[in-house]
Amino acid sequence: MDAAALRAEFPVLDRLAFLNAGTDGPVPAAAVRAATEALEDEAQAGRYQPHFEQRSAAQAALREAYAKLLGCAVEHVALKTSTSEGLGTVLAGLELGPGDEIVTSDTEHPGLIGPLIAARDRGVDIKAVPLKDVADAVTARTTLVACSHVSWMTGERAPADLKDTGVPVILDGAQGVGAIPVDVGELGCAAYAASGQKWLCGSDGTGMLYVEPAFAERIRVHAPSFVSFADHHARFDATLHADARRFDTASLSREAAAFSLAAVNLLAGAGLEAVHTRASGLAARLAEALEARARAVAPRDGTTLVSWEDPDPPATRERLAGLGVIVRDLPGTPFLRASVGAWNDEGDLERLLSAAAP
Amino acid sequence: MDAAALRAEFPVLDRLAFLNAGTDGPVPAAAVRAATEALEDEAQAGRYQPHFEQRSAAQAALREAYAKLLGCAVEHVALKTSTSEGLGTVLAGLELGPGDEIVTSDTEHPGLIGPLIAARDRGVDIKAVPLKDVADAVTARTTLVACSHVSWMTGERAPADLKDTGVPVILDGAQGVGAIPVDVGELGCAAYAASGQKWLCGSDGTGMLYVEPAFAERIRVHAPSFVSFADHHARFDATLHADARRFDTASLSREAAAFSLAAVNLLAGAGLEAVHTRASGLAARLAEALEARARAVAPRDGTTLVSWEDPDPPATRERLAGLGVIVRDLPGTPFLRASVGAWNDEGDLERLLSAAAP
Repeated sequence: MDAAALRAEFPVLDRLAFLNAGTDGPVPAAAVRAATEALEDEAQAGRYQPHFEQRSAAQAALREAYAKLLGCAVEHVALKTSTSEGLGTVLAGLELGPGDEIVTSDTEHPGLIGPLIAARDRGVDIKAVPLKDVADAVTARTTLVACSHVSWMTGERAPADLKDTGVPVILDGAQGVGAIPVDVGELGCAAYAASGQKWLCGSDGTGMLYVEPAFAERIRVHAPSFVSFADHHARFDATLHADARRFDTASLSREAAAFSLAAVNLLAGAGLEAVHTRASGLAARLAEALEARARAVAPRDGTTLVSWEDPDPPATRERLAGLGVIVRDLPGTPFLRASVGAWNDEGDLERLLSAAAP
Repeated sequence: MDAAALRAEFPVLDRLAFLNAGTDGPVPAAAVRAATEALEDEAQAGRYQPHFEQRSAAQAALREAYAKLLGCAVEHVALKTSTSEGLGTVLAGLELGPGDEIVTSDTEHPGLIGPLIAARDRGVDIKAVPLKDVADAVTARTTLVACSHVSWMTGERAPADLKDTGVPVILDGAQGVGAIPVDVGELGCAAYAASGQKWLCGSDGTGMLYVEPAFAERIRVHAPSFVSFADHHARFDATLHADARRFDTASLSREAAAFSLAAVNLLAGAGLEAVHTRASGLAARLAEALEARARAVAPRDGTTLVSWEDPDPPATRERLAGLGVIVRDLPGTPFLRASVGAWNDEGDLERLLSAAAP
């Protein structure tokens, strides 16, 4: 599948220069078809045993697809509603308290800040430094690191030497998976949480959580639902799944799983390497063009996000939307941010450049 | 809307005697339309600001619909993925431990047993007695009661005097809301968790949690996502919503909210009192007919579940499904269970009776 064929799978791109996958990706027609077929079947055939079998099959296939993207065994991947939920599961389950310290960056997304606030409220010290300094900020009293794999603000990557700090590293991969190649083994992280609806173009309310198996033993399942158990019919004798399914979200619908599965299958069919290469190449060209037009582009590391300074980001964002160019502002920063995917093309970049940096 | 008109809204009823709403309700055509319209719009118009506004609007309307069903203010209702998740949020958030005792019944659903196992693992004593004896089992050392509002096994109700025990009562309302009238004030409960996909015919992955506001102060939000905060852009200074939104699930999709909203609106449009009266009336007739045919029907309290003894429930369930009659077995019990809704009719009951108790 070439770039034009991939692009043709996304109806929104006929109208808009859609550059906001870092929030929610464009939706492939195939994903709508898959979700709609599931919904129609639920209404016509009813939701009983065959429905639950279809739901399980879609969930299992989605878990496998996520495991491939993360470069790990399927047993180490939980299905979640979001990156936020995954990060919350890990950070709450560790039951840290006074005497513990978490090193993080000072530019994290609210999805990670939420669980960090909860940890702080339990007496954990939170040390926030610039992302590039996170590894250096680890000391003998640090319990763990929790930070972005790729910064949602700038596209900057977490330091490569994080894995050598000697403490467990929990990565917020919301701007990682689907955007750039990910291999949790190479990253050496203890946990990696990511989204189904951003760079993977799946359904809102889907996501993934990788947990390294030895580290998983340290995470208490605070609020297990019956899907967390290997044998819930054993009632009070039930035992948790030995694998990451014990961290699964309580109820992921068949239609949501079918939506996200169809989307990830489309990208896998186009070739993930090609998808990554094309997206980062387009993003680099956009960053260069903005700089050539004297726009201050935030430091980035060859990822798919391009953030640049604008005198009034919310107003410019709205003006651009009126012109069919979809980017976002980042409250509390001087930046507008474009998310560049393999589905975009030079025409999208041109529309953005002529509207935002004429 | 009369009974026949309501029934005509559910395509599955053209084919099947669908009597399994206690697991997942029949899906109205209007719910599929609403979800499909949302999905199409996401694909065509893109998921950015207008999408998130639509999502918020659907969530707000769903929360209001749930509040009406529960008989409480909208501020006291959280949107959850499931009954299980709601029960888990409350029981984990109370942070009970050694010295605490929870009284429950010996016939609870795995959705409540999961969080009770987690409490037991933290040193809480769990005292399980027959549902009818739960109020009497409360002593001076009891911390709280957690049990079914309506038993998923038999349709039996929790004792009416539970609210006089002097301890907080947490109700699993999975077989309550939508099936029988619910008023959390009258029930006098501290928390009530229920499902969107069962008696309300909504999407899998939707549900509700009522928490009485003073009791809510005792529940720690272990893993807040950014939707839990009133002002997540305040970053480390963010504060949790003062109302029940702090317990909201991290990511409820627009299409799931639209699905469940359309379904609950259909039932509300038919008149909830009429829906409740018709369902319990049909269920009573089924129970009488089974007894007239010498089937041992489990004790029930005028609810919408009818469970009766069968020599081989899994085999009979499968045989009935082959005849287009959908009921369920209850592993570890001698029962088959029929869930009777206002959408059913005498013809459905006749099909069941002639197949199961000829």
